[in-house]
Amino acid sequence: MIKVETPSAKYQVFAGTGLIDSLQPRMVKVLAGMGQKLPRRVFVLTSPEIWELWSKRFLASFAVEPVVLLLPPGERHKNLRSVEKILRQMAKAGGDRSSLLIAFGGGIVGDVGGFIAAIYMRGISYFQVPSTFLAQVDSSVGGKTGVNLPEGKNLVGSFHHPLAVFADMELLSTLPDRELRAGLFESVKAGMIRDRSLLRYMEENSAKILGRDPAALEKVIAASIRMKAEVVGIDERESGLRMILNLGHTLGHAIESVTRYKVLLHGEAVGWGLISSLYLGKMRATITEPQFQRLMRLVYLYGPLPALRLNAQKLVDATAKDKKHLGNVRRFVLPVGLGDACVVEDVSGAELLEAAQYMLALAKPLPGKAGA
Amino acid sequence: MIKVETPSAKYQVFAGTGLIDSLQPRMVKVLAGMGQKLPRRVFVLTSPEIWELWSKRFLASFAVEPVVLLLPPGERHKNLRSVEKILRQMAKAGGDRSSLLIAFGGGIVGDVGGFIAAIYMRGISYFQVPSTFLAQVDSSVGGKTGVNLPEGKNLVGSFHHPLAVFADMELLSTLPDRELRAGLFESVKAGMIRDRSLLRYMEENSAKILGRDPAALEKVIAASIRMKAEVVGIDERESGLRMILNLGHTLGHAIESVTRYKVLLHGEAVGWGLISSLYLGKMRATITEPQFQRLMRLVYLYGPLPALRLNAQKLVDATAKDKKHLGNVRRFVLPVGLGDACVVEDVSGAELLEAAQYMLALAKPLPGKAGA
Repeated sequence: MIKVETPSAKYQVFAGTGLIDSLQPRMVKVLAGMGQKLPRRVFVLTSPEIWELWSKRFLASFAVEPVVLLLPPGERHKNLRSVEKILRQMAKAGGDRSSLLIAFGGGIVGDVGGFIAAIYMRGISYFQVPSTFLAQVDSSVGGKTGVNLPEGKNLVGSFHHPLAVFADMELLSTLPDRELRAGLFESVKAGMIRDRSLLRYMEENSAKILGRDPAALEKVIAASIRMKAEVVGIDERESGLRMILNLGHTLGHAIESVTRYKVLLHGEAVGWGLISSLYLGKMRATITEPQFQRLMRLVYLYGPLPALRLNAQKLVDATAKDKKHLGNVRRFVLPVGLGDACVVEDVSGAELLEAAQYMLALAKPLPGKAGA
Repeated sequence: MIKVETPSAKYQVFAGTGLIDSLQPRMVKVLAGMGQKLPRRVFVLTSPEIWELWSKRFLASFAVEPVVLLLPPGERHKNLRSVEKILRQMAKAGGDRSSLLIAFGGGIVGDVGGFIAAIYMRGISYFQVPSTFLAQVDSSVGGKTGVNLPEGKNLVGSFHHPLAVFADMELLSTLPDRELRAGLFESVKAGMIRDRSLLRYMEENSAKILGRDPAALEKVIAASIRMKAEVVGIDERESGLRMILNLGHTLGHAIESVTRYKVLLHGEAVGWGLISSLYLGKMRATITEPQFQRLMRLVYLYGPLPALRLNAQKLVDATAKDKKHLGNVRRFVLPVGLGDACVVEDVSGAELLEAAQYMLALAKPLPGKAGA
């Protein structure tokens, strides 16, 4: 169990196996700790696939069946239209200020569910039950919620923390291999920015981890969550330290945006982004050549990363639209040695271009293979 | 100048004449007090009418012209569609996390503007410049923001406080007489629940107040804001004391809902609601017969209230949908003597029906006149 403690909220993340079979008593316990009871009306926001696979076990522990709200899969449903539809369903079903929402699914369900909980009747309580590796190690912790606008990703949202997060390894058993690998790049990032022992563990145990050995997965997930909980506890609103969580994300987001989110999974784009950050780190000597080699190898261990055929300048241009940029300042996160990172504001367009070119050279499709 | 101090925010409400001519320096001063500067991008959300009347004077003090966002007038535009449209305009105009929003208009502009500021890039700063009496004394203070769903009013929103509120009496010079009278019922309410001297002042100076004597208006507005600031400071999230602000609002909201918000202004519905609350207070002996008579007279002083022809049972049924109700508990605010109020949870349907009948008998259209 990992504690998250920010200026505005205190909650726990439970990581384990089989949590899904006892969700109601677990939630009742969390609520009791706050002097509250399970309300009359409980909602579950989930995706049709997840619900198909897990509804029976999910529902088994509930005395009164929750009202199920379905969000169709895919980034294109992460918008205000979906939010409005779901809010209306909640109002029609008699949801009031004491109602509770459970966001049960991947990162999109978590982001949308958290946002709905943030704005329904000016805020109701919610729990996160993330079903993908990425959601378990990253998006379910930290209170960031939101949806996309046609003008950009996550441009609308709130900070709204869950009452607790239940990360059940067992849900990962149905996760496609590609999604597991993609999610693991966020753990690689976690190690790079703040946890040298996680780095070493992931270097030494890639076969176990990719083979879904429960103990190995739990170790990686717990360490990743602990790192994030620590950073978010120190800087809830991303005014300083929390920026380091964006290692690999500047060019990662640019890749996603240029390919219209259709080619790579988020974690894969972060994987390529990490490679350009490592290159920049080596150029600026925040990491040594041997550290660079070692960290590059670690990224490759969790590949393969899908091939890309993109224009480097286009990627650099796309970084200008990143909402992390304030005014004209271009912030960039660099690795510092093994297990540390820093934020710099003086990375020039030329440096960024060089880093993008380095990365894209590695990402080029092999002869005879089609790329993006 | 009135200070608002809640657990999550501290800000000031400036009430005066001619503030609109010096908004930029005033805002710069507030920002400087927080170690911030006026950002590159400033947005003004306003309604076409208000902007037509006041844009010249509003803009005169701004070195760089703000980006104007227009919200068409009327409750039917207070919805998520309008919110999405405005958020997209902001994204297109290059709004970032440091951008600032000014909500310049009546209650709807304030509610929508505050909500947009709450969710754009997970929250940006904003100022309130309320242009109606009602918005000045009520909705611009307290941090409640939001929009309607087809299923009910204000079902979606956030708590998000402005950096400051600038209530300029001069803006009231173009306010229709009916809107002024309607807004004054919120001040009558303010006096009833917490300010005996405001009650007396409004009893003794109705001619001056309705004649828009600047000193008299300023006195009523400042006292009303002070009352609200105090209550909100004690109970930001409406878990207890803040409930008393709903005196007259249970049946007031029911009237608005049954007439689909088309017949009465909000303040007028509150006026009728206050009458039923006074009746219930008399029945339950929380006010004496002479106090009842005196407070009834005060409500009438700020009339005329538009006639109504409604079914009492329908009104009572409509109160069940009020989002202030938690589960099956029906909360009701009663006046206690002169200048105090309490919340009770045991008002029966029969009592409420009697109060509605009493009020509707008074609200009946006069012979030969058409009512709602």
